[in-house]
Amino acid sequence: MTARETTGAATRPVTWDRADPAGAIAAAAARCSNWNRWGAADVRGTLNFLDEGKRVQGASLVRRGVSFSLAQRFDADGPQKGWRRRTNPVHTMLSSGLDSSESQHFPHGISGADDVVFMPLQASTQWDGLGHIFDHGRAWNGRVAAETVTSEGDLVTGIETAAAGFAGRGVLLDAGRVLGEYGELPDGFALTPDHLAAIIAAQGSSAAVGRGDIVCVRTGALARARRDGWGDYAGGPAPGLSFGCADWLHDTQIAAIATDTWGFEVRPNEFDVAFQPLHQVAIPHIGLFIGEMWDLEELAADCAGDGRFEFFLAAAPIPFTGAVGAPVNPLAVK
Amino acid sequence: MTARETTGAATRPVTWDRADPAGAIAAAAARCSNWNRWGAADVRGTLNFLDEGKRVQGASLVRRGVSFSLAQRFDADGPQKGWRRRTNPVHTMLSSGLDSSESQHFPHGISGADDVVFMPLQASTQWDGLGHIFDHGRAWNGRVAAETVTSEGDLVTGIETAAAGFAGRGVLLDAGRVLGEYGELPDGFALTPDHLAAIIAAQGSSAAVGRGDIVCVRTGALARARRDGWGDYAGGPAPGLSFGCADWLHDTQIAAIATDTWGFEVRPNEFDVAFQPLHQVAIPHIGLFIGEMWDLEELAADCAGDGRFEFFLAAAPIPFTGAVGAPVNPLAVK
Amino acid sequence: MTARETTGAATRPVTWDRADPAGAIAAAAARCSNWNRWGAADVRGTLNFLDEGKRVQGASLVRRGVSFSLAQRFDADGPQKGWRRRTNPVHTMLSSGLDSSESQHFPHGISGADDVVFMPLQASTQWDGLGHIFDHGRAWNGRVAAETVTSEGDLVTGIETAAAGFAGRGVLLDAGRVLGEYGELPDGFALTPDHLAAIIAAQGSSAAVGRGDIVCVRTGALARARRDGWGDYAGGPAPGLSFGCADWLHDTQIAAIATDTWGFEVRPNEFDVAFQPLHQVAIPHIGLFIGEMWDLEELAADCAGDGRFEFFLAAAPIPFTGAVGAPVNPLAVK
Amino acid sequence: MTARETTGAATRPVTWDRADPAGAIAAAAARCSNWNRWGAADVRGTLNFLDEGKRVQGASLVRRGVSFSLAQRFDADGPQKGWRRRTNPVHTMLSSGLDSSESQHFPHGISGADDVVFMPLQASTQWDGLGHIFDHGRAWNGRVAAETVTSEGDLVTGIETAAAGFAGRGVLLDAGRVLGEYGELPDGFALTPDHLAAIIAAQGSSAAVGRGDIVCVRTGALARARRDGWGDYAGGPAPGLSFGCADWLHDTQIAAIATDTWGFEVRPNEFDVAFQPLHQVAIPHIGLFIGEMWDLEELAADCAGDGRFEFFLAAAPIPFTGAVGAPVNPLAVK
Repeated sequence: MTARETTGAATRPVTWDRADPAGAIAAAAARCSNWNRWGAADVRGTLNFLDEGKRVQGASLVRRGVSFSLAQRFDADGPQKGWRRRTNPVHTMLSSGLDSSESQHFPHGISGADDVVFMPLQASTQWDGLGHIFDHGRAWNGRVAAETVTSEGDLVTGIETAAAGFAGRGVLLDAGRVLGEYGELPDGFALTPDHLAAIIAAQGSSAAVGRGDIVCVRTGALARARRDGWGDYAGGPAPGLSFGCADWLHDTQIAAIATDTWGFEVRPNEFDVAFQPLHQVAIPHIGLFIGEMWDLEELAADCAGDGRFEFFLAAAPIPFTGAVGAPVNPLAVK
Repeated sequence: MTARETTGAATRPVTWDRADPAGAIAAAAARCSNWNRWGAADVRGTLNFLDEGKRVQGASLVRRGVSFSLAQRFDADGPQKGWRRRTNPVHTMLSSGLDSSESQHFPHGISGADDVVFMPLQASTQWDGLGHIFDHGRAWNGRVAAETVTSEGDLVTGIETAAAGFAGRGVLLDAGRVLGEYGELPDGFALTPDHLAAIIAAQGSSAAVGRGDIVCVRTGALARARRDGWGDYAGGPAPGLSFGCADWLHDTQIAAIATDTWGFEVRPNEFDVAFQPLHQVAIPHIGLFIGEMWDLEELAADCAGDGRFEFFLAAAPIPFTGAVGAPVNPLAVK
Repeated sequence: MTARETTGAATRPVTWDRADPAGAIAAAAARCSNWNRWGAADVRGTLNFLDEGKRVQGASLVRRGVSFSLAQRFDADGPQKGWRRRTNPVHTMLSSGLDSSESQHFPHGISGADDVVFMPLQASTQWDGLGHIFDHGRAWNGRVAAETVTSEGDLVTGIETAAAGFAGRGVLLDAGRVLGEYGELPDGFALTPDHLAAIIAAQGSSAAVGRGDIVCVRTGALARARRDGWGDYAGGPAPGLSFGCADWLHDTQIAAIATDTWGFEVRPNEFDVAFQPLHQVAIPHIGLFIGEMWDLEELAADCAGDGRFEFFLAAAPIPFTGAVGAPVNPLAVK
Repeated sequence: MTARETTGAATRPVTWDRADPAGAIAAAAARCSNWNRWGAADVRGTLNFLDEGKRVQGASLVRRGVSFSLAQRFDADGPQKGWRRRTNPVHTMLSSGLDSSESQHFPHGISGADDVVFMPLQASTQWDGLGHIFDHGRAWNGRVAAETVTSEGDLVTGIETAAAGFAGRGVLLDAGRVLGEYGELPDGFALTPDHLAAIIAAQGSSAAVGRGDIVCVRTGALARARRDGWGDYAGGPAPGLSFGCADWLHDTQIAAIATDTWGFEVRPNEFDVAFQPLHQVAIPHIGLFIGEMWDLEELAADCAGDGRFEFFLAAAPIPFTGAVGAPVNPLAVK
């Protein structure tokens, strides 16, 4: 592994005009586009970087056999408050232990419980699919958004097309622990490529980031929400990646990135008037898979304990056909 | 690995009176009970067998780095027909690529798609939780079902308690290929412990089954349903495990078992009047996790190709708090 | 009341080319358009015909004080089979009589049951809203469909805009009883304006149809489905209005029409290749409200008994904001 | 109409011990029980008072032909905040005006919009069914709650059994206008029988309350919530009926009562520790139908304008089979 891979640092300093998000986005998109990198029919985006060798490498990282779920609990006590019709999951029972075998019309004393759920697919721990965000009507790989994601769902890059891919090497960048006071970054903290390089340097060689990795960035925002109440955890101010990370996300050739925040990038955004500009580059242009609202707390504590920040990560989304995002229970195994 | 572990065969022949399911179930429960094996507070059941060493062993099986999703697609074209209010998932868009940036009131040309789903948690590929089935009002570990699984869900053994456990060694037993004509078992075919031993013997040492393994049994029923139409795939006749496998499931100390059918055990059941008698032993008494409606087709083809029937399996259910079953996208990595 | 009002018969015979649905639809739309009849901002369509005088007239028809619900039961045993993601309603309990006051954490022995539902809005007895059907991208009153009904719902003519209007004089035309064998029309039976006139004539003066009335047409298809099983009741062949009724629907100036079938017009449609051509005229061009899957059985029996086919009808849809259709429990009071 | 009917006033003054809700509830239940009044099989409760004569009387009140919807809009901007898993309705489109005829695979230029909803049945304007509340495990008419309302829903008194009944004479008691400052009662204001009598007296003879009437009590709480924001409108403090109204509700022999608040009775309740004690008497013992979250604003303005507080009311709940409550769009016609 070369020093370049180890640091993953962008060599190009990035600046932009706060008053011109459209211009900055267009420039970043031009620099970072992966359109047609894997052919016109591609539906895998940066998952293409996660090849079989990377998967073998990931598995080789399992030493102690401990596993960590990186999912929040899915229930009515979650962070959603109805913004854009996103509610928390509503879980109800079709039958329960209160029903008897007789009332269920079953023989020989058997009875059962069964349940249903209603949920926005991005209500809790999830992957953004490649059909989640568009730039001026264009989806990943230059496709026309209106032809790609209709009322029937994502007809081309639905999350089911990524069902088998998310298994490989995971790397934890614990930004909260390295850069924050008390292990947490404040809302509005913008993580720059230099910050990422500093975290990698501080954590040591096991934190090197390179092609095909799935990078997990812990800001501490979830820990804070758990302690202080959800507040605007889902949809409000948050620490996260700076718009200036677009090139880093592209150049490192990572397969995916996930954070413990609702939106992965810093909020408020770094423009006078903007909404998730880094998404607008990352998903349609880079073809990057973004994980949000991951629970990295237990894993981070373990990594801090043994000084190893890499692990095998299996994070397969539920393959809802045509979904533009999907719940996932990521497992990190060390 | 000993011969005993290799074959996993039960040494006790099991017989029962077709007219007396209650008696047969009670006898099997008495033989196979794991109540209090891991203490009164246990919520993990047979997941206790899947220890860290097993997880390390599982990871060591990754050689080529190929991964397989063992999930069916989750959509409206699934097998459910409304039995016990189980519908197929209904996926709808909150917004799509048809909506413009302007209509979404977003700046700088960004727009997005978002979606929701309504689904029974056991509509498609899933794990049964330990609160799914009761025997005469008793849940896993002897708990009173009515106090354990209420209208609020499973208050003790909800699937979220198993969120981190399902990562380890998977073994495919391709019953359809070994025993069936054209690679498929017919509906009503009851797989006995002798059948399982024969499959293991036929497949060779990589198919050995032992403590802590997650066993995947392919009957071919899903392949048939895909070819011929769903018919009664969800709720009707099916090949599956014989009631006589209760001891095998217990004695092998496997962590979990999954099949490509809706109900894991053979249907019609092997009694004059019965409903899922093996469930009644396996879940509340053995504390066994059962996976249903898994898609083992691609994996099975690969295993048949390279003759290796073991793999690393990560199969983490979405941790809906209090759920008695949950969707999962299992990943097998070889 | 003049003879014209009594018969409601169209005076223009209508013919069309079975091979040219587009041409026939365009011609009917030209003849029957109500665009701008009530101004460019109109959202009420034919509800404009149901004025206060009509409502007073309707109330005056209440003689015996008997009331009839014209709604089917909303439950999982309904006719939907998943076509276009339309499922039957799924009703689940949040809590029930099985939960105790203690388990609900309530004082003084109170306990309660609560429930939720998931349902397509057109799963059962319902009104089509004016935003339900479009003709070449045009909605009611000539609006651009894509600007009127977006992923956010119907921004202009959502069913909530009709929340207060549906109360007035109802008239039952019992086509099954007058024209059918055993009180039922067979699937594919096309009711023409002449048929409607004959029914009115047979039923007598109380069956006169005129401006502002809500016409309920009973074909007997629901009775048949109840007896023989749902089959393709929702989405398949059915008796219903002929395409030739477009002018009748327009010229009579009725406020609304409802049937006991899923789609109000005859199926198969009366063209070589077509899908609901009468809808394409009636909703976007006439601005007509159409009720579907109404249960007219009890009411019809009563009307046949006393020979009075008119009644007060209150049929207020649940005002889901932006809905293009909505469930309704219509009450007929005689 | 006698003076007794006009005032509807209870003659018995009611007092209770704030520290003993159970005792007060038991005493009120004993005084007010209607168990077996209409036989052991009864499922209609106080709807029995709404007979055909009352329905004729109600229809006779229609003079001007104006109609008012008494339903709130059903949408994501409603008052629910997740308490007891009650969310606001989530309405999504299956297809919309953004989809083209071609993309929908329809011929001759037709296209359509369709939609679904997920909602708690008591999320907005609704009727409580007779299976909604229990007293020490007993439901309406003395039935065992656990046998009456199971995980399958209300097997006996499901709201569908009341599908045809709610049409008759409605009376508005505008408590806010008569007793409040600025037309609104403050939260915690307990309406006593004396208050109700005073309102009736102030409003005049058209406000007389008697057997079989549906009484609509406007507190002004909804107007306040619309002006000031929902706050705790659904589940928090509210003006409403005093516990002391139990006898009035029983003795007047009204068919139903509805308010513009979430819970009909005053909150906080008039005991040291209590939860909805008047419900505990009214539903299981009186068999009373209670409407909640009705929008009485327009109707109240009209009544204040013409001095007539009675009207025809049709308020048929959507007949979800087994539901313990159901949405309704009540129509008042004057």
